[in-house]
Amino acid sequence: MARRTIIPVILSGGSGTRLWPLSTAERPKQFHPLVTERSLFQDTIARAGALQDVQQPLVVCNEAHAGLVQSDLAALGVQALAVLLEPSGRNTAPAIAAAAVIAEQAFPDAFLLVLAADHAIENQAAFASAVDTAAAVAGQNYLVTFGIVPDRPETGYGYIRKGEPHGAWAQLSRFVEKPDLEMAEHYVASGEYLWNSGMFMMPAKLYLAELQAHQPEMFAAVTAAVTGSSELHGCLRLGDAFSTCPADSIDYAVMEKTRRAAVVPLDAGWSDVGSWSALRETQRQDERGNVFHGDVVASTVNRSFVHASGKRVVVAGLDNVVIVETPDTILVMAESESQNVKALRAQSERKRDSDE
Amino acid sequence: MARRTIIPVILSGGSGTRLWPLSTAERPKQFHPLVTERSLFQDTIARAGALQDVQQPLVVCNEAHAGLVQSDLAALGVQALAVLLEPSGRNTAPAIAAAAVIAEQAFPDAFLLVLAADHAIENQAAFASAVDTAAAVAGQNYLVTFGIVPDRPETGYGYIRKGEPHGAWAQLSRFVEKPDLEMAEHYVASGEYLWNSGMFMMPAKLYLAELQAHQPEMFAAVTAAVTGSSELHGCLRLGDAFSTCPADSIDYAVMEKTRRAAVVPLDAGWSDVGSWSALRETQRQDERGNVFHGDVVASTVNRSFVHASGKRVVVAGLDNVVIVETPDTILVMAESESQNVKALRAQSERKRDSDE
Repeated sequence: MARRTIIPVILSGGSGTRLWPLSTAERPKQFHPLVTERSLFQDTIARAGALQDVQQPLVVCNEAHAGLVQSDLAALGVQALAVLLEPSGRNTAPAIAAAAVIAEQAFPDAFLLVLAADHAIENQAAFASAVDTAAAVAGQNYLVTFGIVPDRPETGYGYIRKGEPHGAWAQLSRFVEKPDLEMAEHYVASGEYLWNSGMFMMPAKLYLAELQAHQPEMFAAVTAAVTGSSELHGCLRLGDAFSTCPADSIDYAVMEKTRRAAVVPLDAGWSDVGSWSALRETQRQDERGNVFHGDVVASTVNRSFVHASGKRVVVAGLDNVVIVETPDTILVMAESESQNVKALRAQSERKRDSDE
Repeated sequence: MARRTIIPVILSGGSGTRLWPLSTAERPKQFHPLVTERSLFQDTIARAGALQDVQQPLVVCNEAHAGLVQSDLAALGVQALAVLLEPSGRNTAPAIAAAAVIAEQAFPDAFLLVLAADHAIENQAAFASAVDTAAAVAGQNYLVTFGIVPDRPETGYGYIRKGEPHGAWAQLSRFVEKPDLEMAEHYVASGEYLWNSGMFMMPAKLYLAELQAHQPEMFAAVTAAVTGSSELHGCLRLGDAFSTCPADSIDYAVMEKTRRAAVVPLDAGWSDVGSWSALRETQRQDERGNVFHGDVVASTVNRSFVHASGKRVVVAGLDNVVIVETPDTILVMAESESQNVKALRAQSERKRDSDE
């Protein structure tokens, strides 16, 4: 098989609001050690770096997080091909486009392996195998998305409907928004649907060509932003043209429009680490179903998640609770409130405003 | 009615272990603002100071807490008759004896109003009225204990059985240890029992005479300790003889042996503030039955107690929980665990030891 040049593109623009109060605008979720001793961002860099045929990674992040990215990379001893700073977030299609332009300048035949900086994947071998398959499909001039093999009728994820099958991969039929439970059960039972992971493998050239064809305004703005980019503390700050770019996801802007969309299944213990309950469910639990981080003492506690950052947390006689301690806030909630964390944060911020 | 000389004797030797982690050996329960903006100790001093015919208070405390007592008194602008420091805790009978000796030296006809430093009383007028009654009974040469009129079959308190009735007071029949629920229900239904409050009114002279008669060894040790006392930072440190004194409660050492024991009922919203659940139950609750101290944000929380000392505590979707935040520890427990706090503290301390 021909050697390929794969550039990991790490999208680090997420804000992880459902992991408040640990995840904040200043230090969002991907810069916290939530699954291993390393941050999710570092886990992602390392996961990509362990693959075959990969070059140095490209990172795309919010300008405000340049320092976090650089120190996380330095701690791993990894030199990025570039760290692209977005003057403002424009969703995934423009971010990947900027990365594609930079990657293609360095390696004209580059494949982009687009990964979110804040996901977890348990099984590296299964991941590597799916990446191999995806690279082979991308080599046939496809934009490949990874579809997670569902193990439950999750209503918190979007789904991908598979089209015409080709052995280990399929044409992409369409994207489906987060379903209700009945619909999710139908999707999972049918075997025709995968979870939308937000991860991709594709030739940089093909992505740019399809973007130019389907989103010429976006293509023009991104091209101008890269041309107008400037060095900033060892990163590459995209030019102000980036802020004029239409904001849209790669799913809608390109994948649903192109005729070259494919999907490769991934069954590797993937999680988007999207909530405190997801974090407990996807981590190694003790015999009572608990996951504890930090200095925790527990007595008769079941199916609970405790993240102690500084103080000792002593818990007793409780089931299904989430406790998260940060330097200024302690969250104590029923696990069933995990999807309401954004609202809790808003409530807390209103109180802080009115206190001031 | 003849003017009396009442000396409040504030017993501040308690350790409040069931209010851990706020209450610690260094700063036990009575030195925290748990019911009002003032500490329980200050509340007690003020409660006594508002009565008729009272002189400056006498405080008996652990040597380690002299500084806390003095700063709490200074903040109230109260000058104690004396602050007696116990070189070691010998239970209530010797502590009250030492106070009686000092009080009698200053005021030969002094009555002692013995109060625990860590109780709460809601209704000052009802308290003052019971104190008046008790003083009148003590004036007939009785050692009077206050018996709390029970409003529930509490199994966490000892009981007092009333003897021969005399209108507003009764002879004391006997003390009863903490009963089981069935027995407690019987006690309350009978109308013959009151809760043992640990509060007393008695002529200092009579107490010392009865102590000398029934506990001559204790009397001798305490007398020697007062004689051998020395000034220490404005307090009076009892001599080392105190540490050789038999340790016993006034209930067993004197009240059960004397023929001059009486009981006056007290129905004034008394609580021993003995546990986190007791603290919630005896304080003003919001419409959902919650009691919050400090910076708390709550969403769908019922019958819960939250004490935030420094950080903001955000609580959601929980009922009947107790959350206590201190500078080094956060306790999160089901309210039903309130009686197990000592064990939790021990478990936490074992972990700390094994961590070091």
